[in-house]
Order: sequence, then structure tokens, then C-alpha cells
Amino acid sequence: MPVSEVKALAFDVFGTVVDYRSTITHEGEQLNQQKGLNVDWARFADAWRGRYNPFMDKVRRQELPWTNLDGLHRLALEEVLEEFHVTGLTEEEKAHLNKVWHRLQPWPDSVAGLTRMRQKFILATLSNGNVALLTNMAKYSNLPWDCILSAELVRAYKPDPKVYRMTFELLDLQPREVMMVAAHHGDLHAARFQGLKTGFVARPLEHGEGGASDLVGDPAFDVNANDFVDLARQLGA
Amino acid sequence: MPVSEVKALAFDVFGTVVDYRSTITHEGEQLNQQKGLNVDWARFADAWRGRYNPFMDKVRRQELPWTNLDGLHRLALEEVLEEFHVTGLTEEEKAHLNKVWHRLQPWPDSVAGLTRMRQKFILATLSNGNVALLTNMAKYSNLPWDCILSAELVRAYKPDPKVYRMTFELLDLQPREVMMVAAHHGDLHAARFQGLKTGFVARPLEHGEGGASDLVGDPAFDVNANDFVDLARQLGA
Repeated sequence: MPVSEVKALAFDVFGTVVDYRSTITHEGEQLNQQKGLNVDWARFADAWRGRYNPFMDKVRRQELPWTNLDGLHRLALEEVLEEFHVTGLTEEEKAHLNKVWHRLQPWPDSVAGLTRMRQKFILATLSNGNVALLTNMAKYSNLPWDCILSAELVRAYKPDPKVYRMTFELLDLQPREVMMVAAHHGDLHAARFQGLKTGFVARPLEHGEGGASDLVGDPAFDVNANDFVDLARQLGA
Repeated sequence: MPVSEVKALAFDVFGTVVDYRSTITHEGEQLNQQKGLNVDWARFADAWRGRYNPFMDKVRRQELPWTNLDGLHRLALEEVLEEFHVTGLTEEEKAHLNKVWHRLQPWPDSVAGLTRMRQKFILATLSNGNVALLTNMAKYSNLPWDCILSAELVRAYKPDPKVYRMTFELLDLQPREVMMVAAHHGDLHAARFQGLKTGFVARPLEHGEGGASDLVGDPAFDVNANDFVDLARQLGA
């Protein structure tokens, strides 16, 4: 196996481990009923997630001071609520809706695959999500992490090299002993550039049926897998 | 219950969760056999741990640049090996011995109590141990943490207020929603001063039979417990 030195797996979370689009749609439809709204929550989820990179860019360009992802989600939420003409939510309801990112549900294979991989590897998050978000999500959705690593700890967002380097520095490993796992080519190429091994997992439904996703792997990655159980198998776990 | 607002428990680890003295003694005695040594490893453990605070003081006084606990343990180990006239260990053997702190065994009640408490609370470490040490120890000894928080993340050692404040800041909680759990009064008083709730657990054997420990609690603490199962019970978990 070309990755026999790997001791830890570092996971992108949104889209790779959990299915934000379905979870937001599901919770939103309940809110439609409770509040008599008529929002298309799949489109709402896409619009909310669509502001993810633009808002991180504001931090990257220092147009915003350091703001963790809960904070950026909230800024984006205000815009999306306006765009979808949702009025009449209380402050408490908006705060609860913003924390839907703490309650995201895993893809069907995620927990089974992680549970297998945990027997052989240290499993860490390596996400732009903040520590509270990742910790609450893990508890809510039974994600068996050994360690919560977050962009918040270095106050920089992926693909900033500091985020990837934190992984092997804090785990006291060599870069080649850590594999970044993600459904997004950009994340993996950035990790590879810092010396990490890379594992691609296809998540064709991240953006819904027919949505634009990174559908196939790349020979540049060390492993290309169909899902987390396939990844576990390929890693000998 | 006076602590009904508590959502997360933050644990001191060395001495509170794990029994370093017994583990070092046990591993050391195996090393005696393998290498034909005649070291009193209980005394060795005491001497090694005795250098814990003096070495952290060097960092606190900036006589040493930031050095994580693996690094301080290693500096102290060199001194203790000399004090006990242990020669002839290879570099690899010394590195392995230094990582005995990654392999510390829990007190008999620790895992049972933590497992109960985890049903009701977020469980985090809040230790001067570095992230790799705490992560490896959790995996080795099946400690069910939700989140690894370490002095290393703020590059300051307890009782620096930054370490305690990190807990509620990163978990996005109010200070009173976090309880520090420790077998050491000083740690708890420092946490209390930052607004955290406090839970004392007696660990009378931390320094061996008749060793000087904080044997009893203090009415200033919110909870005083005999062990982790008692603590779980008192916290309604």
C-alpha cells in the first residue's frame, strides 16, 4: 500500500462527512410548517452555502476581523433570510436555525466507515468549522473523532497552509504520516502541497441531483474512494 | 442541583484521570528486566513528576521558549536518568520511555464514570499535556473525550487564565456552563477565579501510599467527590 506510513486521517467535514443540504432542507421544512412559511429550503441551503467562501474571503482579505464559522454563518443567514423574504423569526429562532450546522447528519456510510478506520488510525477533523460546531455535531451525530482540529485554532481558513500544517504539528507526526480526506479537489491539492497524503471520496449528491460536484478522483491523490467504507477497505482498516 | 447550568466538564488529566505513578513504575520495572537495571521506578516517577512544575516555570518566566509537555518531559528525563545513574539507553529507548506519558493508565473508576458523564455533558480534557500526548493517551486507554483541549493550543500552562478561558471560548459557552474537574485544589481555585464551576475528586494515591495529596475537598468547590462514579452520581449523570 502506498500509504503504509499513514497514522492519522484528517477529515474535511461539510459535504465530505455530513450532508448539509439534506439536513437544512429537512429542518427548514419543519420550520415552514411551524411558522406558516413557504420557503424552498434546498435552494435556501444552496444560497447559504454559496456565501461560505465569499464570507471566508472577507476574513482572508482582512475586510473582516477574525470571525469563526458560526459568526460567518450568522452574517450570511441574515442575507439569505432577506433574499428569501423570510421575516418574523425571533432572535432565538434565528440563533437556533444558525446552529443547524451543529446538527448536520452524516452520509449513510460515514459512521460505519469511520468506526472501521478508527481501529487503525487517529481520526481528526480538519474543518473550517469552529470547535464548538464540530464538537456539538460529533456528539449529535455520533461521529467517532479522536481529536477535534479546526481552522479556528490557527485563526485562518483552508486552504491556508497553516491549517494543514497544524495537523501534523499538533499530532507530532511527519506530514506524510497524515492523510487528508475530502470530497473536494481543491482541499486535497492544498493538503498535498504541505506534504500530506490525500484520500478523495466522491460525494455526488453534495449539491443535490445534478449539482456540480467533484465527481471523480484524480491520479495525483493517493487514494480515490467511492465512500467511507470503500476508503476503509483501501486503507486496510 | 447547584450546577444545573453546566453543559461541559473540563478535566485535569495527570493524577485526576490517570495514575502516572503506577504506570511509570510498571513500565520501568519491565525496562529493569530488559536492560538489567536496578532502578526504583516509583521514586523515579516521583522525581520525574517533581520536575514538572519547575520546568513549566522556566517557560512561564520565559527562560525557555514555548516548549510543549513532551519537550519538557524529555528535558526532565535527561536529568532524572543522570540522577538515577541510568546509562546505556539508546536514543530510541529514551524516546519510547518519554512517551510513557502517552500510555498512562486510568484510575479504576475513570472510564466508567466518564462514560456515564458523557451521556449528559460534553467531556473535554483541560490539561498541560500537549495535543498528541492527550490524543494518543485517549486512544491507548479508551478515554471517551468529546474534545481534546490542551494548554498547547494557547501556548501557556495552567494556572494561566488563558488556559481556563479557552474552554468556554472554544466551546461557545458561558464560564458558569463549564465545570473544571481536578484532584488538585490549586487548579480548581484558578478555574473558579475565571468563573468556571468546580468539581473536586479525591485521588489519595496519586503520590503513592502516604504521599502528600489534596485528600479532602473544599466547601468553596461546587462538588466534592470520592471518585468519578461518585462525581457522575452527584451530577445526575
